[in-house]
Amino acid sequence: MRKKLIGQSCRLFFSEDPVKIVRARGQYLYDENGTRYLDCISNVQHVGHCHPAVTKAAAAQMELLNTNSRFLHDNIVHYADRLSASLPDKLCVFYFVNSGSEANDLALRLARQYSQHEDVIVLEHAYHGHLTSLIDISPYKFRKLGGQKEWVHVAPLPDTYRGRYQEDHVDPAQGYADTVKDLIEEVHKKGRKISAFFAESLPSVGGQIILPSGYCQKVAECCQSLTPAKLYVHAAGGVFVADEVQTGFGRVGSHFWGFQLQGEDFCPDIVTMGKPMGNGHPLACVATTQEIAGAFTANGVEYFNTFGGNPVSCAIGLAVLDVLEEENLQGNAYKVGGYLKDLLRGLKAKHAIIGDVRGAGLFVGMELVTDRKERTPATEAAAELVRRLKNEQICISTDGPGENVVKFKPPMCFSAADAELVAEKIDHILTETSCPRQLNGMQTPGLGDNCCS
Amino acid sequence: MRKKLIGQSCRLFFSEDPVKIVRARGQYLYDENGTRYLDCISNVQHVGHCHPAVTKAAAAQMELLNTNSRFLHDNIVHYADRLSASLPDKLCVFYFVNSGSEANDLALRLARQYSQHEDVIVLEHAYHGHLTSLIDISPYKFRKLGGQKEWVHVAPLPDTYRGRYQEDHVDPAQGYADTVKDLIEEVHKKGRKISAFFAESLPSVGGQIILPSGYCQKVAECCQSLTPAKLYVHAAGGVFVADEVQTGFGRVGSHFWGFQLQGEDFCPDIVTMGKPMGNGHPLACVATTQEIAGAFTANGVEYFNTFGGNPVSCAIGLAVLDVLEEENLQGNAYKVGGYLKDLLRGLKAKHAIIGDVRGAGLFVGMELVTDRKERTPATEAAAELVRRLKNEQICISTDGPGENVVKFKPPMCFSAADAELVAEKIDHILTETSCPRQLNGMQTPGLGDNCCS
Repeated sequence: MRKKLIGQSCRLFFSEDPVKIVRARGQYLYDENGTRYLDCISNVQHVGHCHPAVTKAAAAQMELLNTNSRFLHDNIVHYADRLSASLPDKLCVFYFVNSGSEANDLALRLARQYSQHEDVIVLEHAYHGHLTSLIDISPYKFRKLGGQKEWVHVAPLPDTYRGRYQEDHVDPAQGYADTVKDLIEEVHKKGRKISAFFAESLPSVGGQIILPSGYCQKVAECCQSLTPAKLYVHAAGGVFVADEVQTGFGRVGSHFWGFQLQGEDFCPDIVTMGKPMGNGHPLACVATTQEIAGAFTANGVEYFNTFGGNPVSCAIGLAVLDVLEEENLQGNAYKVGGYLKDLLRGLKAKHAIIGDVRGAGLFVGMELVTDRKERTPATEAAAELVRRLKNEQICISTDGPGENVVKFKPPMCFSAADAELVAEKIDHILTETSCPRQLNGMQTPGLGDNCCS
Repeated sequence: MRKKLIGQSCRLFFSEDPVKIVRARGQYLYDENGTRYLDCISNVQHVGHCHPAVTKAAAAQMELLNTNSRFLHDNIVHYADRLSASLPDKLCVFYFVNSGSEANDLALRLARQYSQHEDVIVLEHAYHGHLTSLIDISPYKFRKLGGQKEWVHVAPLPDTYRGRYQEDHVDPAQGYADTVKDLIEEVHKKGRKISAFFAESLPSVGGQIILPSGYCQKVAECCQSLTPAKLYVHAAGGVFVADEVQTGFGRVGSHFWGFQLQGEDFCPDIVTMGKPMGNGHPLACVATTQEIAGAFTANGVEYFNTFGGNPVSCAIGLAVLDVLEEENLQGNAYKVGGYLKDLLRGLKAKHAIIGDVRGAGLFVGMELVTDRKERTPATEAAAELVRRLKNEQICISTDGPGENVVKFKPPMCFSAADAELVAEKIDHILTETSCPRQLNGMQTPGLGDNCCS
């Protein structure tokens, strides 16, 4: 039925042997035979699958009222107020929508209306959503589809493991910021103008990348001492859009928002949020400044989103915030995420195939390479590891341009025992599949990727 | 708080004196003081506000599982199967999304991928959604914003009351279809090619318009005897997209889909659906043919919609279909909608300000004019009528380019007594506000619009 009725572009996990999940709780999925899987990837089910407090809030509000935001209602303003408290003061105006894609599309409209410019700078490999406008600004998609629009400009991904400036560079934040500066100069030479710089606070599809600290400030703000003010995004009239669709709501552990990893001196002009907001309910949001919202209002045209900000969506959003606080899940992400990273770094000391382990809180990437010097992506090995982990009842997947970054973004209730289990299974699989010949006392790459080469 | 926290582009109903609704049931809204309003406009709450069967299905599924469509699940295929049964055989592939806007954007992507053409024909005054791509194809929006893109072509709205071919025309369906043919010829002369003709099956923002029967066939199919085949949309390589976001799911009474009013010999290539699907839950869908879906799959790029088609959304969609059937709400729309139209036509015989009453099922428009010959929109009178009806605890609003079409699209449980109440209140208000001087024994226009002119 699935093959017949659902567009084949909608792909299944483990497409050769897909899983039929019938119930879930916390960080665990159960298939039709009752087999339990540890879920390392469902960042949408943020406070845990089927959290009873969220279900209760949803059902109670559904029984009472669900209408649109053209009527006054307490939930929408209380929810906006709660979100506002988590953000820097200047991000104080909210638009509620139904998906991260709708949020990013609205961010694009806001940026263009405010700046009166058209062009957008994005990072290489970025993915900002499935809509026409967002495929245009997602190199991850447009490189496979229609090609690059003349108003889109792609800056290098500030990846300090694999990018042009690596961990041995004296100042990768400055180096990568300068690539944006150079790009803006090129754009200006063409007589074009920048409306926005879009970036995920931690690029996900790009390979679970941690942006070098200070990069966003340097991109967003005039860095007077080094270059003329007018060359950076703000001074060029554009706005900084932080895409927090995958990274917000405490996932990074040390902070509530991913962009806060850049330091207290950085504040984007627009923040988009989505996946974790409603714990699975279609709920997303754009936060911006009074100035940008004011420019959007000044065009005189209504923005109406049928389901956006309805009382049920907002009740669910509020319940998610309550659970996050009551169960200190941000603290758990900090603690368990750090422990998971330590465990994986322990494995890196043992298995040469693990080239890098990076992350913040429960946003972690483990990059597999066939050799550490060249950092050649171990694509097939990563796929094989995912398949074998599935056989061990662990749901996990890969990301990155080489599809060689094993990614962890589990529900925020992921425990230390879960981290130990997954690390132990990875250790076991890598040991079992590594080559018998050892290099420098370490297990060498196996799992089908140029074994012993 | 609302003014401070929520973008001002998100407007309120009755903005000068907005209503705070705190609960609702069936076709009734209740404000914070317990005052009951009859709801004539919430087409989203299709089977009635807070229907217990829908709430129950949602809560049960939320307790069990809510994950994404990359896992196999029964709900998504059962729901697609149920929708399939309501559609012509060729519309047999489904994509689930979160809003009518997401559906229309995906329809645009499908049409372009399939046809390999870029251009789109839309109807004057059309509104297809709030996304960047949809504002581009919505004259209702782009005429107020950035202007018309070179790939967008606007055909006259087939409005037989106010348009270029009216009820006295020998064959308005043919007349309006010929305007599309002429437009396609112009487009081809520019060396451009059509990917899609987009139209709501009953244009809503355009003024609750009933398309002349046969228009869609003539637009969509080659009309060999009259013009060369290549001039119509299909033969030009484009596809026919029926936007059923406001009109589907039995609202038109005689049929389940609005496009079916055109006759059994018409079938669109793509149908988009949204507002009523989830009774308020963010749920929408694109249905298309195997050929079009196949072309989309053939580009080799995944389409992933995070929340689209999740088990909870589909459980809610299935519950809405069950209620529609069990309570025979399509039959109710047919009966009560017909009765409402009769009552309003009765008022038309009495009040000269009512220029036209039209509709299908519970999709009804009453057009107010300052004089019947010129058909001048009675804009201010319509606004005043809406305000006065609000004081009588009736929620209603206007549409149409002249904002003079009072629109009815209530929850489908709207009763004969509700129809009588609203007709009686309208009669009373129009009588009370009409000019003392009568013309031909009829009350003349009042309510502030060129009274007695």
